[in-house]
Amino acid sequence: MPADAAPSFLYVAELPAAGATLRLAPEESRYLARVCRARAGERARATDGHGGLALLRLLDLRGVVTAEVESVDHQTPGRTAHVLCGAPAAERGDWLIEKLAELGVTRFQPVDCTRAAWRHAAGRAARWRRLAVAALRQSQRRWLMEVAGPLGLEAALAALPAGAACWQGDPGGRAAGEVTAPRTGVAAGAIGPAGGFEGRERALLEKDGFEPLRLSAGRLRTETAALCWACWWSAASPAGPDQGGPPRSGGGAGL
Amino acid sequence: MPADAAPSFLYVAELPAAGATLRLAPEESRYLARVCRARAGERARATDGHGGLALLRLLDLRGVVTAEVESVDHQTPGRTAHVLCGAPAAERGDWLIEKLAELGVTRFQPVDCTRAAWRHAAGRAARWRRLAVAALRQSQRRWLMEVAGPLGLEAALAALPAGAACWQGDPGGRAAGEVTAPRTGVAAGAIGPAGGFEGRERALLEKDGFEPLRLSAGRLRTETAALCWACWWSAASPAGPDQGGPPRSGGGAGL
Repeated sequence: MPADAAPSFLYVAELPAAGATLRLAPEESRYLARVCRARAGERARATDGHGGLALLRLLDLRGVVTAEVESVDHQTPGRTAHVLCGAPAAERGDWLIEKLAELGVTRFQPVDCTRAAWRHAAGRAARWRRLAVAALRQSQRRWLMEVAGPLGLEAALAALPAGAACWQGDPGGRAAGEVTAPRTGVAAGAIGPAGGFEGRERALLEKDGFEPLRLSAGRLRTETAALCWACWWSAASPAGPDQGGPPRSGGGAGL
Repeated sequence: MPADAAPSFLYVAELPAAGATLRLAPEESRYLARVCRARAGERARATDGHGGLALLRLLDLRGVVTAEVESVDHQTPGRTAHVLCGAPAAERGDWLIEKLAELGVTRFQPVDCTRAAWRHAAGRAARWRRLAVAALRQSQRRWLMEVAGPLGLEAALAALPAGAACWQGDPGGRAAGEVTAPRTGVAAGAIGPAGGFEGRERALLEKDGFEPLRLSAGRLRTETAALCWACWWSAASPAGPDQGGPPRSGGGAGL
């Protein structure tokens, strides 16, 4: 890895207190040894995906990795984003999950709509979680994106936190470039399925105060629109507050 | 397709003048007959990917489709975007091309960098063009994204139009949410490869006035960063000027 690389970044569902010795799960052990090529004595960082971040000193990388927890701190998120998303065309869900997690989305809520329902979502839950964990490591964030099971629109709206600032992708709305995403608090974006929301669904969103937002001049596929909304939200992030550490100079694809 | 669907949208490399009879290529013929399920007598729209848009009346859909060109008009683009992009991890180029084309990017320029070079780009040129054409139809735009062959950074910079407003993805830059993308003219975004631009490359970009832009609080993969920049640019689009027609109410995934 480049000389300016930050310490390796891991996902550990339950972080012990400082001073404890941690035994990493097989997947994280493999990641450290084979992908990061870490060595004993090196430092690594680990998050629990709920705002906790530990600094580790690697003790032994033969087989299951053991590490000493040097310090742990916890943060509460300054901002969160919920994506309510209709079903995209087949097989486009996987990379959508990866990208939304990379962008720091808090919760992904598949929405079964009149014009399209999510198929195979249940069968993909484990895979989507793995993709979210991989994206968490990649983007070095403290919060693991939650991937919810599909709901109808009314139930999905009822599940949103109170006081969320809400938008829906709509070519008739204001250009997203002219609207500033909230830097704090809860934001929610609703994206229609292929074919779009139908009349009753649009009325529900309007009733709940979802502002129409034009994400592009062209027609977008469902997954592209969801990604655009997440990019729009993520682009308003204050510098690195939800990261495991400071951005790597020159690292992370020039980010 | 939904009742509120717009007429089918096609890509025809060379549009004849109004009054002429057009014989569609096999791919477009199949698309009309099998995907759009269009019928004789229906209208369709066709772009040449260079700003021309024709209204067609379908004559015969058995085998090669024939259509009468009822009218043709031409537009010049009000804004263009050039993406200079380092190599992402393997096999992530395909959907990046699709998404950038969907977002209305004008030209995609793969850049061979010190830390990563584009492999197989030459072998993928035909596939990438097909993906760009499919995205053109999907997003109903008038301009086909050009996919250039890989260049070194200096050559890629030299190939940019004069007077382009330039940005580079950089976690140390201003939050993209606080910067307004240009609504007109030429914009360019430079995204580093996996591992990021190295020192000499950063100096070249700085010398050419590429402003650092923070696209997210987290580390982003190369293809995600390129997509974020394109979303940021696309989100500032005035309503539908570069589309083949007005957005479909309820169509295009709620866009």
